[in-house]
Amino acid sequence: MTESVLDYMTRLGRAAREASRVIGRASTAQKNRALAATAAALDASRAELTAANEQDLAAGRANGLEPSLLERLSLTPARIDSMIAGLRQVASLPDPIGTLRDMNFQPSGIQVGKMRVPLGVVGIIYESRPNVTIDAASLCLKSGNATILRGGSEAIHSNRAIAACIQRGLDEAGLPAAVVQVVETTDRAAVGALITMPEYVDVIVPRGGKGLIERVSRDAKVPVIKHLDGICHVYVSAHADLNAAQRISFNAKTYRYGICGAMETLLVDQAVAVDFLPSMAAQFRDKGVELRGCERTRELIDALPATEEDWHTEYLAPILSIRIVTGLDQAIEHINHYGSHHSDAIISDSQAQTRRFMAEVDSSSVMVNAPTSFADGFEYGLGAEIGISTDKIHARGPVGLEGLTCEKYIVVGDGTQLRGQGPV
Amino acid sequence: MTESVLDYMTRLGRAAREASRVIGRASTAQKNRALAATAAALDASRAELTAANEQDLAAGRANGLEPSLLERLSLTPARIDSMIAGLRQVASLPDPIGTLRDMNFQPSGIQVGKMRVPLGVVGIIYESRPNVTIDAASLCLKSGNATILRGGSEAIHSNRAIAACIQRGLDEAGLPAAVVQVVETTDRAAVGALITMPEYVDVIVPRGGKGLIERVSRDAKVPVIKHLDGICHVYVSAHADLNAAQRISFNAKTYRYGICGAMETLLVDQAVAVDFLPSMAAQFRDKGVELRGCERTRELIDALPATEEDWHTEYLAPILSIRIVTGLDQAIEHINHYGSHHSDAIISDSQAQTRRFMAEVDSSSVMVNAPTSFADGFEYGLGAEIGISTDKIHARGPVGLEGLTCEKYIVVGDGTQLRGQGPV
Repeated sequence: MTESVLDYMTRLGRAAREASRVIGRASTAQKNRALAATAAALDASRAELTAANEQDLAAGRANGLEPSLLERLSLTPARIDSMIAGLRQVASLPDPIGTLRDMNFQPSGIQVGKMRVPLGVVGIIYESRPNVTIDAASLCLKSGNATILRGGSEAIHSNRAIAACIQRGLDEAGLPAAVVQVVETTDRAAVGALITMPEYVDVIVPRGGKGLIERVSRDAKVPVIKHLDGICHVYVSAHADLNAAQRISFNAKTYRYGICGAMETLLVDQAVAVDFLPSMAAQFRDKGVELRGCERTRELIDALPATEEDWHTEYLAPILSIRIVTGLDQAIEHINHYGSHHSDAIISDSQAQTRRFMAEVDSSSVMVNAPTSFADGFEYGLGAEIGISTDKIHARGPVGLEGLTCEKYIVVGDGTQLRGQGPV
Repeated sequence: MTESVLDYMTRLGRAAREASRVIGRASTAQKNRALAATAAALDASRAELTAANEQDLAAGRANGLEPSLLERLSLTPARIDSMIAGLRQVASLPDPIGTLRDMNFQPSGIQVGKMRVPLGVVGIIYESRPNVTIDAASLCLKSGNATILRGGSEAIHSNRAIAACIQRGLDEAGLPAAVVQVVETTDRAAVGALITMPEYVDVIVPRGGKGLIERVSRDAKVPVIKHLDGICHVYVSAHADLNAAQRISFNAKTYRYGICGAMETLLVDQAVAVDFLPSMAAQFRDKGVELRGCERTRELIDALPATEEDWHTEYLAPILSIRIVTGLDQAIEHINHYGSHHSDAIISDSQAQTRRFMAEVDSSSVMVNAPTSFADGFEYGLGAEIGISTDKIHARGPVGLEGLTCEKYIVVGDGTQLRGQGPV
């Protein structure tokens, strides 16, 4: 009699919960040892990793997988190098667990503060990119969490080979195997089970396309750390240095079209539009970026008409919508209304303007005189990221080690403090 | 044609979202002015408040409301005093909004840090305790959030009278009326609408019985800050000062039986059980506390047999379950297994023991040589609390002003930093 998917996932969940107690109290040295040993195991297993990946790629080709998906699926030597480098990088990050802050004495005589602790068990659901297996496992391990990883079924052989390396790393550090578990079934019911076990899973991080994230968020009975859209804006204010504005806008759009921090809409103050837009537009056109503008924009430059839908669209492509706004208020209003609360920038030399923009733009990253393309955990100094959250509850913006932890209160007395009485 | 409940709630939601932009950027002085003016309005409206409350009490009596509910419903002069004092207290707290931290320069030249900002719109659902209207409104206002308050229908006249005072306060401070909105309908469909409008409501805080909180959590499409049970433990370790242990355990249980921080289970190390339990039990018996013990406990003291269910039970009553444990490991295991991740204490003079207990007990408050009855926002120095969260995501433990906020990233450049390039 074979085990049902639900029974299988329950078994993983229970094992993860138990393992979370062990990894939660593991020392920094022990966690770093596991990361280093995993890196060494990957390095020693290049042939096995490549062979397993070839199996996945062959099956993918046979099943007519799109070239872009095959590309993401492939474990090139350079990708293996970068997984190894990533593990060493995470090992070098400060351990967030156990830090105490604000231990203040209260009138009763108790001392109260906060200690940073792991979330417990983190479930990661991702598409067929085997390198995510290492990224996610290393961040969760360093932050003291047990992990259940559910990668895309097209990557199953690659993920198993990577999992074997992680198991060697855990074993060498004396940590239980269930600290990192890779879901071994490709049955889609496994995802349904994983996101509805609050007794075993504390948080779910879905990584992938919008469809996956929406489905997971809708059905989950467990908190989800997610980001849906990255409709990012750059607002060129009346007080902008126009050379800087052009440089920043160009980089925000063209550094990479496909990243979530890419600018999708350029807002230009009416006071500078005449001076700014023509040369900006020329630079974008030279690069092959299609421009779509509001009516006033189209009086100044050659652009297709932008529709209401354009302001709501994350192109992730060489297309840019442009709107001329009447000032700071309209820019903020546009961003808060049409944006996705991801990353938005102002170009301005007015301190009063930037102060208002920072306070009032309701986005996970608000930028001043810098391109939105910087929205990234590495660029922010987090060392690594498990994703970018556009939620307001818990983590917001790039999620690194700290976003995989929480704080509990610590209360310390000396035995003489009683509630409702002075000290004895 | 009358407005449907859904249309009515959508109207409140839309108004709250708009008002949240205004209160989110309001100055500390303006928010404090609104709090002070509301306090003055309450003080000047004692007669109206009492009359409105009399209407609710009369209806409650006519409907056969239980005495304990009538008691909670009543707005005595002392309760009005304490609402006024609460408003002044919240006004005196430091404003959490806008603080910047960790603005560190990164290798690219950008400076990255975090700014504390309001959540946006907070929905509060509570039972018929009109004083909660002021507690919740004042905390949300000070933390820069708009609020939609949905109190129990039995308190509708009292809540309207209080809302009128809040409106006067907002008006005097030049803030829009929709910063604090009281749901005026007693139709229960209003709750269903409030918890399923993520476009207008950022977080829901249910305050009340377990039934209410479970219902809200199950049906909400908006994040919920909640606490279900407070099954709190005190563990008397082998290294406890037994006099302190007795003092602390007694206070943890008897300070007030009905608070969520009240001890429900006493865990006693086998090494000290013989010396500790008899006099401890005598003190509890003198106070009228019913004791239920494990088998080993019942060999030492007179107690009813504790069943498996007892370890899972929050009595909120003069009943205590007692278990003798083999040591620290079993105590931690018991607490993490049977507890509700609320507040748990160790009594020990061993630094090694308390260090492990703090790290490994997975509760929102972990206490050392202090009674669990201290679990409270005022005692923790938060100034006030909107509830105690036993969730791990976002706020954990007593939720004060900070728990009603989040942090966004601030990225600052000078126009020369571009992604993927050195400074220009």
